Amino acid sequence: MREPFFADIAPVRYEGLKSTHPLAYRWYEPNRLVLGRSMAEHLRLAVCYWHTFCWAGSDPFGPATMPRPWMQPGDAMALAEQKLSVAFELFEKLGVPFFTFHDRDLAPELGSLRASQHALKVMLDKAQVMMERTGVKLLWGTANLFSHPRYMAGAATNPDPEVFAHAAAQVRDALEATHRLGGANYVLWGGREGYDTLLNTHLKREIDQLGRFLNLVVEHKHKLGFKGTILIEPKPMEPTKHQYDYDVSTVYGFLERSGLAKEVKVNIEVNHATLAGHTFDHEVATAIALGIFGSIDMNRGDPQNGWDTDQFPNNAPELVLPLYRILQAGGFTTGGINFDAKVRRQSIEPVDLLHAHVGAIDVLARALLAAAAMLEEGALSRHIDQRYAGWEGELGRKITEGQIDLAGLANLAVDADLAPKPRSGRQEMLENLVNRYI
Amino acid sequence: MREPFFADIAPVRYEGLKSTHPLAYRWYEPNRLVLGRSMAEHLRLAVCYWHTFCWAGSDPFGPATMPRPWMQPGDAMALAEQKLSVAFELFEKLGVPFFTFHDRDLAPELGSLRASQHALKVMLDKAQVMMERTGVKLLWGTANLFSHPRYMAGAATNPDPEVFAHAAAQVRDALEATHRLGGANYVLWGGREGYDTLLNTHLKREIDQLGRFLNLVVEHKHKLGFKGTILIEPKPMEPTKHQYDYDVSTVYGFLERSGLAKEVKVNIEVNHATLAGHTFDHEVATAIALGIFGSIDMNRGDPQNGWDTDQFPNNAPELVLPLYRILQAGGFTTGGINFDAKVRRQSIEPVDLLHAHVGAIDVLARALLAAAAMLEEGALSRHIDQRYAGWEGELGRKITEGQIDLAGLANLAVDADLAPKPRSGRQEMLENLVNRYI
Amino acid sequence: MREPFFADIAPVRYEGLKSTHPLAYRWYEPNRLVLGRSMAEHLRLAVCYWHTFCWAGSDPFGPATMPRPWMQPGDAMALAEQKLSVAFELFEKLGVPFFTFHDRDLAPELGSLRASQHALKVMLDKAQVMMERTGVKLLWGTANLFSHPRYMAGAATNPDPEVFAHAAAQVRDALEATHRLGGANYVLWGGREGYDTLLNTHLKREIDQLGRFLNLVVEHKHKLGFKGTILIEPKPMEPTKHQYDYDVSTVYGFLERSGLAKEVKVNIEVNHATLAGHTFDHEVATAIALGIFGSIDMNRGDPQNGWDTDQFPNNAPELVLPLYRILQAGGFTTGGINFDAKVRRQSIEPVDLLHAHVGAIDVLARALLAAAAMLEEGALSRHIDQRYAGWEGELGRKITEGQIDLAGLANLAVDADLAPKPRSGRQEMLENLVNRYI
Amino acid sequence: MREPFFADIAPVRYEGLKSTHPLAYRWYEPNRLVLGRSMAEHLRLAVCYWHTFCWAGSDPFGPATMPRPWMQPGDAMALAEQKLSVAFELFEKLGVPFFTFHDRDLAPELGSLRASQHALKVMLDKAQVMMERTGVKLLWGTANLFSHPRYMAGAATNPDPEVFAHAAAQVRDALEATHRLGGANYVLWGGREGYDTLLNTHLKREIDQLGRFLNLVVEHKHKLGFKGTILIEPKPMEPTKHQYDYDVSTVYGFLERSGLAKEVKVNIEVNHATLAGHTFDHEVATAIALGIFGSIDMNRGDPQNGWDTDQFPNNAPELVLPLYRILQAGGFTTGGINFDAKVRRQSIEPVDLLHAHVGAIDVLARALLAAAAMLEEGALSRHIDQRYAGWEGELGRKITEGQIDLAGLANLAVDADLAPKPRSGRQEMLENLVNRYI
Ligand SMILES: [Co+2]
Ligand SMILES: [Co+2]
Ligand SMILES: [Co+2]
Ligand SMILES: [Co+2]
Ligand SMILES: [Co+2]
Ligand SMILES: [Co+2]
Ligand SMILES: [Co+2]
Ligand SMILES: [Co+2]
Repeated sequence: MREPFFADIAPVRYEGLKSTHPLAYRWYEPNRLVLGRSMAEHLRLAVCYWHTFCWAGSDPFGPATMPRPWMQPGDAMALAEQKLSVAFELFEKLGVPFFTFHDRDLAPELGSLRASQHALKVMLDKAQVMMERTGVKLLWGTANLFSHPRYMAGAATNPDPEVFAHAAAQVRDALEATHRLGGANYVLWGGREGYDTLLNTHLKREIDQLGRFLNLVVEHKHKLGFKGTILIEPKPMEPTKHQYDYDVSTVYGFLERSGLAKEVKVNIEVNHATLAGHTFDHEVATAIALGIFGSIDMNRGDPQNGWDTDQFPNNAPELVLPLYRILQAGGFTTGGINFDAKVRRQSIEPVDLLHAHVGAIDVLARALLAAAAMLEEGALSRHIDQRYAGWEGELGRKITEGQIDLAGLANLAVDADLAPKPRSGRQEMLENLVNRYI
Repeated sequence: MREPFFADIAPVRYEGLKSTHPLAYRWYEPNRLVLGRSMAEHLRLAVCYWHTFCWAGSDPFGPATMPRPWMQPGDAMALAEQKLSVAFELFEKLGVPFFTFHDRDLAPELGSLRASQHALKVMLDKAQVMMERTGVKLLWGTANLFSHPRYMAGAATNPDPEVFAHAAAQVRDALEATHRLGGANYVLWGGREGYDTLLNTHLKREIDQLGRFLNLVVEHKHKLGFKGTILIEPKPMEPTKHQYDYDVSTVYGFLERSGLAKEVKVNIEVNHATLAGHTFDHEVATAIALGIFGSIDMNRGDPQNGWDTDQFPNNAPELVLPLYRILQAGGFTTGGINFDAKVRRQSIEPVDLLHAHVGAIDVLARALLAAAAMLEEGALSRHIDQRYAGWEGELGRKITEGQIDLAGLANLAVDADLAPKPRSGRQEMLENLVNRYI
Repeated sequence: MREPFFADIAPVRYEGLKSTHPLAYRWYEPNRLVLGRSMAEHLRLAVCYWHTFCWAGSDPFGPATMPRPWMQPGDAMALAEQKLSVAFELFEKLGVPFFTFHDRDLAPELGSLRASQHALKVMLDKAQVMMERTGVKLLWGTANLFSHPRYMAGAATNPDPEVFAHAAAQVRDALEATHRLGGANYVLWGGREGYDTLLNTHLKREIDQLGRFLNLVVEHKHKLGFKGTILIEPKPMEPTKHQYDYDVSTVYGFLERSGLAKEVKVNIEVNHATLAGHTFDHEVATAIALGIFGSIDMNRGDPQNGWDTDQFPNNAPELVLPLYRILQAGGFTTGGINFDAKVRRQSIEPVDLLHAHVGAIDVLARALLAAAAMLEEGALSRHIDQRYAGWEGELGRKITEGQIDLAGLANLAVDADLAPKPRSGRQEMLENLVNRYI
Repeated sequence: MREPFFADIAPVRYEGLKSTHPLAYRWYEPNRLVLGRSMAEHLRLAVCYWHTFCWAGSDPFGPATMPRPWMQPGDAMALAEQKLSVAFELFEKLGVPFFTFHDRDLAPELGSLRASQHALKVMLDKAQVMMERTGVKLLWGTANLFSHPRYMAGAATNPDPEVFAHAAAQVRDALEATHRLGGANYVLWGGREGYDTLLNTHLKREIDQLGRFLNLVVEHKHKLGFKGTILIEPKPMEPTKHQYDYDVSTVYGFLERSGLAKEVKVNIEVNHATLAGHTFDHEVATAIALGIFGSIDMNRGDPQNGWDTDQFPNNAPELVLPLYRILQAGGFTTGGINFDAKVRRQSIEPVDLLHAHVGAIDVLARALLAAAAMLEEGALSRHIDQRYAGWEGELGRKITEGQIDLAGLANLAVDADLAPKPRSGRQEMLENLVNRYI
């Protein structure tokens, strides 16, 4: 029998604010009721397989600093099994209800599509056993369409239709795998669906191809009877110079153009939002307004570094407003919060994986409590209602209900000599208000 | 009779590459035929009224360095007339065929909407006379919905519907003014249609208001019989923290949501593209692919400064690809190239306005010639056609024409054991190819 | 007698965490002892005159939204006096111990240097009376060498030595004014000491001029007997394309080159740090390490906006580490924390000035308490000591004390076949540790 | 005997502007005299070993796309020899006079320092033979102190002095290797000399360590009798969150602090300049002004991507001013232009390496010709001389020569009622002037 990887680490427990145990939760009480739901049900936390079990500390200037036992030479399937076992060991230590994976995280890519398919099926059997034993569920699955050199110029947007077909095979299998494991969603992240230079790129062809691909996926979902949500994860760039799924608004336009705005939602990653020049809160607010909010990839970037650092979150105030907004919109349905984050390259010990997740979970729990209190007391939403109150009045309704045309409005403004008086936006007061909850 | 403002400056003429005259065109020959059209018809150049005649060198850290005679105390209408006269003096010196203006550039804002309306009408009469005399035409008009404090929280997206009505009055008048002057387009730039903080903002309400406003404008255009194009000019931020018309893709999504994707196009500004994290070329390519390419605001930003520096263009290689792309798509229809650029704060003499425009026009003419030669020789497009040739083959057509579903494709890939071979993207070779034309 | 400007607003008091009064301190207790000093002595808070009393909401796209009574047409000296009175009204309402000013904030610039000098002297008399009456002190004074068009190409770095001389006159007077009011420091901010383009700039001449200027100032300080600290405030850009005082390290090099590294320190502004690509904490740490840490201009930028937004701080976690570092280095000596921040353009009411300062002060007080606790418990510094313990051992000392040369070390490494084992950097654990204090 | 790697590619020749051969020089004529020196002597071009022969297309999201024969499994020394042979094949095909290398590029890192030393010596013998045979010389050598996990927390700035000693061994050997091969310079690039978080970092200790290290290197250089220049290559970040050698000004301050400003110069990389928020031209101008200009790492970044893309240069106008400035300062002495650039990940064929270098060399040659013409005709420098002429006058000299103190200057300004008149900075005219040469 295999040794535990996190041998000397006890399961992480809630100990409250007085605890100084570095591996205890100070804020996260899974079963604590908040606005009528448990914290666990609100946050729907998931550990991701790739950063945590498949990345070993390499960066563009150096190789792995934390090579794991399952990355040593050996039988690929045995190593995949070892990795699976360690993954569930961590899920249980942390007490998180979900995980997420790419096809190639769970099972190796072998010499042919058929062989890789088989490997995936074998590993799915084993994963299913682990899931049943532990009760850990699948938030979403996805396919890796960006690592292999065949995808260097894109998957669905590749100049070669054979690559499109290869990607179709991977997605079909990954979607069916997700369905089989009872996944709540299926995610598409188009890491190389973009371009390195417009000089060699037929942009319109490529976005048409992407639309076609997504339609194929949605059709197949319905054929399968998969009830989960199809999610697109926007990212503006990296590894490509430019990626088509730039941000939430761009994805919305793409979905409208492809006839899929009612079929597909977004998985918003914090660090992708900031790389696109937005706050995370903006992306969440936009997705909710456009009716395509789905799920969250929780991490953070470094404000001084222009690449995807995928750090674990550590600043509670930054998370309060997005969580407030999600609660206000009714909370997650199929979505949840996936830690798409990796420990720093120097955090080479197994225990560092624990520190990273424990701190992140706690900061989210803390932000959830603040957001819930804000929502319950209603001061912020009252302020906004009052600010826009005119739109519930006669003039406002006339405009929004289409009862007056441009000339009518213009004449009304001229005749009444309208001189609307600016009112303070109260930004600083509202910033202070939010700080009161944290 | 008034003294000329550019008294000692002769009209700018084409003198060719041997000229060392700093105020001669070395590349721009308005009547030279390029791919069957004159350079002037290709470029459709316009001087903008605001930066060139209404801005006097103030910045956030200091007041005007180049106060113009028409900015001194005096009778507002007489000063507006003086400004108009200098403007046409410059248009003629430069030999540009178009200009562009905001309502409040041409005529002052007075104490009431009615008084401002009247002032605008008076100035339109005078402008019309100048236009007839000189043959200078109007590329587009627009309304200033961002300077007056009433618009500090937006125009169409203001929390107060009276501000919306006030904006409607301005736009009605500006659209009618544009129609009367035979403008080729009408532009909407939503400088304050965004937010400073989400804390006081009802994002969904605001984008709904914006959609309503735009629909009113389009309806009115049709009632008027205005045949020009309605254009939205994207900008991601500044003066607001975030602006709703972030970039071309965001505007496309907004147009789809508002049912206007066939009615409205975009006016792409170079510096707004870069502030949004895109190349100008990307924005042009995207607009063309989405069918909403309209017009250009030509300037450039500073790659190290994060605000809208609105500098005159000076790098020909940067302009070749966007112009190539526009030519390839058939060239401008109603749109053109407006110099939405200002001289630097230290360029305080009238002659600096000439240097700025002459250099910018020449750099565009040079880029146009290079773009036309590239298009004519076809090397770049041949390369792209070859790269995507597979999509014209059997598998490619099957996919794009919807003759195969995901499972069908997946099975095909597995059965054939597809292992598509990566082909070089040839980026460096193509970069060299473009350099050969410049 | 003049009406109070903040008529209905009571002096701000500490009410503790249970208070929901939006204009009470929840964390800031001026007299509370923290590590043996009062909070007020630790933070040495100052209100700045310019943003708060001289800026009225203009931005590059619109004029003032909050024109103050003292900005209306009228007698310049009477208006300056009115402004002074309102300023001290605010200082007292807030209970802050310090203020800061530019020469041209306090008194108007008149038609000649002599007239402006006189105006400044008159206003200094009045300021002195107010200071004595209220006990509010001067943290630092400075001269505005960037607003007037004469400075458009720099002050000390101007191509025209007459501008240098003019700047010298202003600084002589402002330094003497600061001395007379008992200022604790004198600040130089080189807003236009940089360039818009290298094409017209003799960079070496300009930095030599800057060195000369600074030497003149330091000599004059000693002649005067002024005991305060001379501070340079780094900023990388804006309004210029590039500013010579880019960041703390650049200023350090400049001071070394000018022979002033022991005479001059830095005033670090948070938003200038981030514009230069650094964290505020980095700039503080660097200044302390280089022995030139002086004072703080407290504000924050917007991570998505690339200009100096000068917002009031609102995120306590971001401030804990810089304050920890300052405490660890012994706290402020002559320096302090100046709120170089402005309310948002939509925050147009007098009460918004109160909200802004109260929130900012509270967030600093909260961060101070966290920083003090961290310092007292010592967990962070123990971790660092252990991490570098090897440098206190034999090999470490041999190296730092210069007892071994490169070849000696190389041979030692080869002979011992040194294979140092990487140790975890523990970043996530330490981030969690800090969060425990907030 | 080994097959040539670039089998079907003829040596690249100058064919002039009429050539459409994609692998001919259109501008680069090595022996053409420009201002009295050959183009080859002006540019001193070098191919770098690492990007071109040791990188195979991996990025953070995918593995190698262009695995080279010498990267396959096999005997490490035989593979190193094969790589060496291909390298010189390319040097000769291109006709470049120089190359550059890291210790670990040339020879493998083996199981012990002694074994790696031996491998390096063996490869040096072989390189020397190739150099003699081909006449290709060494521009500079360096040591890789950032790839191996032992350096994950820095080399000289590591918390563990044994890592410092290990680094000393590598640098001793690499410096001696450079000396032996007749290298013109020795470069230090501190890729991990920085921090990922200040939470675990003793900043002052680390910069002191770095100063110690550099002093050891300089001492050893003199002991060896190496006459080349020691160069530091600034970079602001990546792979670390923050690197100590941020930019030229920071390095200058560090050299002053370490007593080495007369011993060490800088190797300026274009993409590192832009990552630090500077133009390349700024960094060159600053280094020249501070007397520490040494050499160039030529590449370019992507203005929209926030990481080190290390692309080959392709925009001639961007290079004219830096080359003008270098010519004006007397040209390179020991330094030169090293292509620290890599082909894009999709440029997977050997011929792409040729396209990349040929285009880059041509763009530099073109820029050199423009820069030389500008320098010869003198229009730009005359403009600058006139702009600063006042500093050669009486007042200017009095100030720069220290003949007047602050009070003296102030009194002079007041007594004369100085009101210096702003003069146009002429930026647009000068931009047009430069464009005339390209
Ligand atoms: Co993600
Ligand atoms: Co990411
Ligand atoms: Co524009
Ligand atoms: Co602009
Ligand atoms: Co400041
Ligand atoms: Co500031
Ligand atoms: Co380099
Ligand atoms: Co680089």
